[in-house]
Amino acid sequence: MAWDPTRLKDWQIAEEAEKNMPTPEEWIDRLGLEKDELIPYGRTPKLDFIKMMKRLENRPDGKYIEVTAITPTPLGEGKTTTTMGLLEGLGKRGQNVGGAIRQPSGGPTMNIKGTAAGGGNALLIPMTEFSLGLTGDINDIMNAHNLAMVALTARMQHEANYSDEELAKRNLKRLDIDPKNVEMGWVIDFCAQALRNIIIGIGGKKDGFMMASKFGIAVSSELMAILSIANDLEDLRKRLGEIVVAYDKSGKPITTADLEVDGAMCAWMRNTINPTLACTVEYQPCMVHAGPFANIAVGQSSIIADRLGLKMFDYHVTESGFAADIGFEKFWNVKCRLSGLKPNVSVLVATIRALKMHGGGPTVVPGRPIPEEYTKENLSLVEKGCENLLHLINVIRKSGIKPVVCINSFYTDTDAEIKLVKRMAEQAGARCAVSEHWLKGGEGALELADAVMDACKEEVDFKFLYPLEMPLRQRVETIAKEVYGADGVDWYPLAEEKAKRFESDPRYKDFATMMVKTHLSLSHEPTWKGVPKGWRLPIRDILVYGGARFLCPMAGSISLMPGTSSDPAFRRVDVDVKTGKVMGLF
Amino acid sequence: MAWDPTRLKDWQIAEEAEKNMPTPEEWIDRLGLEKDELIPYGRTPKLDFIKMMKRLENRPDGKYIEVTAITPTPLGEGKTTTTMGLLEGLGKRGQNVGGAIRQPSGGPTMNIKGTAAGGGNALLIPMTEFSLGLTGDINDIMNAHNLAMVALTARMQHEANYSDEELAKRNLKRLDIDPKNVEMGWVIDFCAQALRNIIIGIGGKKDGFMMASKFGIAVSSELMAILSIANDLEDLRKRLGEIVVAYDKSGKPITTADLEVDGAMCAWMRNTINPTLACTVEYQPCMVHAGPFANIAVGQSSIIADRLGLKMFDYHVTESGFAADIGFEKFWNVKCRLSGLKPNVSVLVATIRALKMHGGGPTVVPGRPIPEEYTKENLSLVEKGCENLLHLINVIRKSGIKPVVCINSFYTDTDAEIKLVKRMAEQAGARCAVSEHWLKGGEGALELADAVMDACKEEVDFKFLYPLEMPLRQRVETIAKEVYGADGVDWYPLAEEKAKRFESDPRYKDFATMMVKTHLSLSHEPTWKGVPKGWRLPIRDILVYGGARFLCPMAGSISLMPGTSSDPAFRRVDVDVKTGKVMGLF
Repeated sequence: MAWDPTRLKDWQIAEEAEKNMPTPEEWIDRLGLEKDELIPYGRTPKLDFIKMMKRLENRPDGKYIEVTAITPTPLGEGKTTTTMGLLEGLGKRGQNVGGAIRQPSGGPTMNIKGTAAGGGNALLIPMTEFSLGLTGDINDIMNAHNLAMVALTARMQHEANYSDEELAKRNLKRLDIDPKNVEMGWVIDFCAQALRNIIIGIGGKKDGFMMASKFGIAVSSELMAILSIANDLEDLRKRLGEIVVAYDKSGKPITTADLEVDGAMCAWMRNTINPTLACTVEYQPCMVHAGPFANIAVGQSSIIADRLGLKMFDYHVTESGFAADIGFEKFWNVKCRLSGLKPNVSVLVATIRALKMHGGGPTVVPGRPIPEEYTKENLSLVEKGCENLLHLINVIRKSGIKPVVCINSFYTDTDAEIKLVKRMAEQAGARCAVSEHWLKGGEGALELADAVMDACKEEVDFKFLYPLEMPLRQRVETIAKEVYGADGVDWYPLAEEKAKRFESDPRYKDFATMMVKTHLSLSHEPTWKGVPKGWRLPIRDILVYGGARFLCPMAGSISLMPGTSSDPAFRRVDVDVKTGKVMGLF
Repeated sequence: MAWDPTRLKDWQIAEEAEKNMPTPEEWIDRLGLEKDELIPYGRTPKLDFIKMMKRLENRPDGKYIEVTAITPTPLGEGKTTTTMGLLEGLGKRGQNVGGAIRQPSGGPTMNIKGTAAGGGNALLIPMTEFSLGLTGDINDIMNAHNLAMVALTARMQHEANYSDEELAKRNLKRLDIDPKNVEMGWVIDFCAQALRNIIIGIGGKKDGFMMASKFGIAVSSELMAILSIANDLEDLRKRLGEIVVAYDKSGKPITTADLEVDGAMCAWMRNTINPTLACTVEYQPCMVHAGPFANIAVGQSSIIADRLGLKMFDYHVTESGFAADIGFEKFWNVKCRLSGLKPNVSVLVATIRALKMHGGGPTVVPGRPIPEEYTKENLSLVEKGCENLLHLINVIRKSGIKPVVCINSFYTDTDAEIKLVKRMAEQAGARCAVSEHWLKGGEGALELADAVMDACKEEVDFKFLYPLEMPLRQRVETIAKEVYGADGVDWYPLAEEKAKRFESDPRYKDFATMMVKTHLSLSHEPTWKGVPKGWRLPIRDILVYGGARFLCPMAGSISLMPGTSSDPAFRRVDVDVKTGKVMGLF
């Protein structure tokens, strides 16, 4: 029985559904867990990754389903909503299904964005915990990250104050850190633009070393990137020692291991390897693990959660951040390469309204009535907009996967519009299903669930876009042409110089190529909708992350610290002091 | 059966004891809880304060026992160890006993200090969780605190960038914050001296407002002070809106409520009102709640934990930070006044070795052998050092409480030394017990337990040192003379000017007087041991905390951000990647 989402707000549906959420005992029973594999944690237990993987080691993996989307528009495509809907639809079909999504950051939640928990009858619960820190993984990452900065800045101070002999007494060797060449900044999980560029260490000899520094949002931390791609605790631990925090005066990298802080960082992060267990409003299990930042990271739920989900479920659904040109590309060439896991199918989410915008529909201004192009049938806009969809179908097909297009239904969609999209998607070699999960929950997602199950019966000849042996610049060229549809790549001198250096240094041979580009267009220019033609991708710079082992070619600027707006969401949040219930979050 | 602490390290004893820690189900059974009153949380569940207080409302309170100590020396008195020992001793006597202590900060834990979990057979478990963030209360406080700073700094930027009309569109009125008069800083829970004095907001119009700012350690946050003195969630919520973050250009205070961020702060702190349940190695329950900062706060476990403990246990033991001149004085005149709770007895912890140091024993240098004054019988040093003990017995007796002196035994103590202390303490009107809890656990603390139970049979005519009607300067004078033993108070011009203002403004009438003074001496001068004579207490400044409702007269400088040393503890911490076990913490 679905709730009426035209009458009830998301938080009201969540509140109703939360009344019957499985208890820890029920989860243990339903998921066939050993008692000590479920670590209780309020309403959101964690799963003990190490213990479970040991027990399930020899169990064959379930089907691996990725959810991605067309290029986003302000009208929204409902990727998380569709992920929840698909879980519910497969659940309604009696399947052993589960999924994994990312934990939202406190920054956007307190600023402008919703909580990324889906919507209507396709919703993740419990919503309050999900929106406000969950089981503390982001806090743990923040603490581990800032501890590295404490180690760095304290070391710089002590090296400035003490002679080599005095350092030796403390069993310390001078690292000779170059204050003009510090890579790492601090983190906080809010949108604190005032901390973007700061000067620290003002005062006397014991007040630190004076220098420029910076804060990023916690979810953009390299530690979060590492958590999302680590295969296990051993891998995590190793990478935590390889983070480059700064360079010495001769240009040699100084790592967290050089600062002897990597073990303690891992201690603060010890609980983060255990995914948190939440569920849909129809009680299909869904893990929440790792964070949302898709710019300099994979921007999807973790390899750890996917490894665990594939052991636990016959169908494991995972979501990739942003649109298919970024999210799917990273899932395909980075995440799956690192995990060795092979996906069975990708679901490509689209809405009729978003397709119309890609087809040249008018701009939508918040607060003003939506133009009638979006509320009335308009087949020519839909047809033109399908270009973006078809381009991304083709991108996904290059991996060997035949995608399922999901038309996330809206009440203004007409039969003719839907038919048109279906025909075009099928002609391009994709399955296509309409889904009404927002309105009807799992009952509305049966067509999608059936299409996905059907697709999972096919063998996938999964292949990467490029081999690891391919040099960096050629990789970027390949991605730009084959995925974004660019004519080629233009290298800024700084980027080209760095690229040459990385290509010739064997140390960077197996570093992943983690593109940084806007998600609002297939190109680097956010305003170019549909499928831009006749353009070249400019690469300005390349960032290096030694722990995550990422090289990030920058096809656009990124801010690691978003800003808080003049009408932030925190203004409307409060607590009922009699019950402790949080209000105004959604 | 106690472990052998001369052979086993604390973490080894903890590890052994943790094997048989009560499960959530066992706690529910043992403590007579309703099932939903225990919120599971790994090995350290939380107690649902709201639900429990509602159920236990009409239950009479148990006996209220406070633990404090003589003036500290580098040799240590073992206050937390004694708290654990007393819980164990009362447990061995078959009593329904429990306690409350504070959660340690990540700063000292990663820097130089141990984890404040007691020692030997008088130890709190689980040690790893206790040392590394527990159930996240400090993180929640850090986030709530920093969200206020995000609100402040974003508001300053938007007011600088927008006209009154543009602000009005967002339903905002210009607050006209004075950037030269910002009170609040940011927090992080490590010793990050490099963040003590910083400049923020460097960059363009959207990169914040450029100004001086600062970071304090998270446990020094006013929010932590508020958590420790709030009576319930309603009280907490109200105080969270009254925090003064800055002043406007006319000098009027700007509060968190003015920034409309207080509700959201409370949402981030919603779980902090529920104390965490840990236990001794002999499994007596002990709550952990609120943080350690005793300078500008009460520096003890919370009123909430004590209210709950008194309902749950027949004997509730709570610890006060620092020595009796600070910890007990604040317990007495601030914490008990705010809670309305009446203590039955105070335990005043001393060691023979610390008394010798107060009696003029030689300085102890770390790394060098301890002088033989401390290892061989020396009655004259003990007798002279008892002055400090007797002074503090007298201080406690002024509250109407007849204290129990606990001689925390060490193997070098001689019978004659112990006899001497006992005789002097008893002559001063105190009970006195020797306790060997470190060596023998509860079995070694029976004498102490019996003395405490005996003391609890007496009626206490509990009275405050000063009435709330007493003006600020007179209060400080009273505390200085009656508690510290000063001849009087010297007011610096700034402090005197502020004091006059606060005395004449009815707004500050019920603000608590929260002294700031070193704990290493009864005086303001850390090197003056024993009972300094012929001195006057200088007050340099008075800090105001509007949410906590504290006025803090400063008889010394305080740093809200300690520094990380050149040989910090984090160097030795690591994780076993096969099991997730943390090593090197203790």
